[in-house]
Amino acid sequence: MGSDAGMMTIYDFPRGPYPARVRIALAEKNLLSRVRFELVDLRKGEHKQPSFIATKNYSGTLPVLELSDGTLIAECTAITEYLDNLDGAPSLTGRTALEKGLIHMMNKRAEIEFLDAVSVYFHHATPGLGPEVEVYQNVEWGLRQRDKAIRGMHYFDGVLREQPFVAGAAFSMADIAVIGGMIFSELVKLPVPESCGALRAWYGRMQERPSVQHWRRPQG
Amino acid sequence: MGSDAGMMTIYDFPRGPYPARVRIALAEKNLLSRVRFELVDLRKGEHKQPSFIATKNYSGTLPVLELSDGTLIAECTAITEYLDNLDGAPSLTGRTALEKGLIHMMNKRAEIEFLDAVSVYFHHATPGLGPEVEVYQNVEWGLRQRDKAIRGMHYFDGVLREQPFVAGAAFSMADIAVIGGMIFSELVKLPVPESCGALRAWYGRMQERPSVQHWRRPQG
Repeated sequence: MGSDAGMMTIYDFPRGPYPARVRIALAEKNLLSRVRFELVDLRKGEHKQPSFIATKNYSGTLPVLELSDGTLIAECTAITEYLDNLDGAPSLTGRTALEKGLIHMMNKRAEIEFLDAVSVYFHHATPGLGPEVEVYQNVEWGLRQRDKAIRGMHYFDGVLREQPFVAGAAFSMADIAVIGGMIFSELVKLPVPESCGALRAWYGRMQERPSVQHWRRPQG
Repeated sequence: MGSDAGMMTIYDFPRGPYPARVRIALAEKNLLSRVRFELVDLRKGEHKQPSFIATKNYSGTLPVLELSDGTLIAECTAITEYLDNLDGAPSLTGRTALEKGLIHMMNKRAEIEFLDAVSVYFHHATPGLGPEVEVYQNVEWGLRQRDKAIRGMHYFDGVLREQPFVAGAAFSMADIAVIGGMIFSELVKLPVPESCGALRAWYGRMQERPSVQHWRRPQG
């Protein structure tokens, strides 16, 4: 089977919104039994330590996937591409050129217009992970990103008025990215506007997926 | 053949670093004869006009691909996924799970650590596209992103000391993303440090590729 079939390690922080994306993808692909999780404590800034940056992920972010041969894959989208294509039957990243294009567009849009914007707000305009970790903050930038995220909620609400899933007719990693945005919004107490009925209803449906329910369970 | 085989439109600005990524991908895939280009004048802020945002790309960025049936695909990575998979023989985005994972990781890293950082520097800490377009600037943030981009150059220099291409043994869209960073760096006069010999040598090799030479030619 080669090294791809071996046990994999995920470096993450269980409740983190970005780690949630990969944990949901793992559950969607029935791969949870193939991974062990190693805690990197965000609250202690372990992801910003020089050793982590030098040996695991230059960008100093979570999660990171390590294959049994030591190969490292960082970035949620990249990890999802890897996991989704392991069995030759991609269900999250698209099968045809058109599906791949639309899913990647909406996945990226979910990041820049919503999830990443909430993250910048959290790290720059709230106490974030605390003064030891947040060694530089740009409050004005953080507040602008908060406003961008709220506009993003309205945008995705409009998308979900027209179609059942973020990238069209089927669940995909673009839905997982918006779920990441919703999780982060809850965390920073940035409520989804009442008027975003389609986004709220979609999120209700997402909560019923076993993969999301699995992530919601208390974790050790 | 269906709508995928029809003539496509690319909304872009020929000399833009992000448009360059898709133009290089089109040349790599021998698809230039299948597209027509429609100018969206960045200098006039046409990409930030409400009509462009409402009908072409919510994020107000270039390039955008429009298929003959009106389907829109924005974001360079998404457009490249589409173009690369049209013929069922991906050469830029990876064939195996491992290739896809590594290429997407390095492609994203090229964006966040280099290309996007140069872009933020340009739009926030230089005159950018001029006062009519740059209606909000955060100079401090822009300067930090400039410094991040320079660190990114050193990072990619280290990568290219170890392997011939950004994502490993073969040319991929991750190389194209770093090429985008180099093009943008030239534009904003942010020189690559002399000490980055491997990055400079790699860029010299990239200039020899017909796809990059095609982009370099004067365009109407």
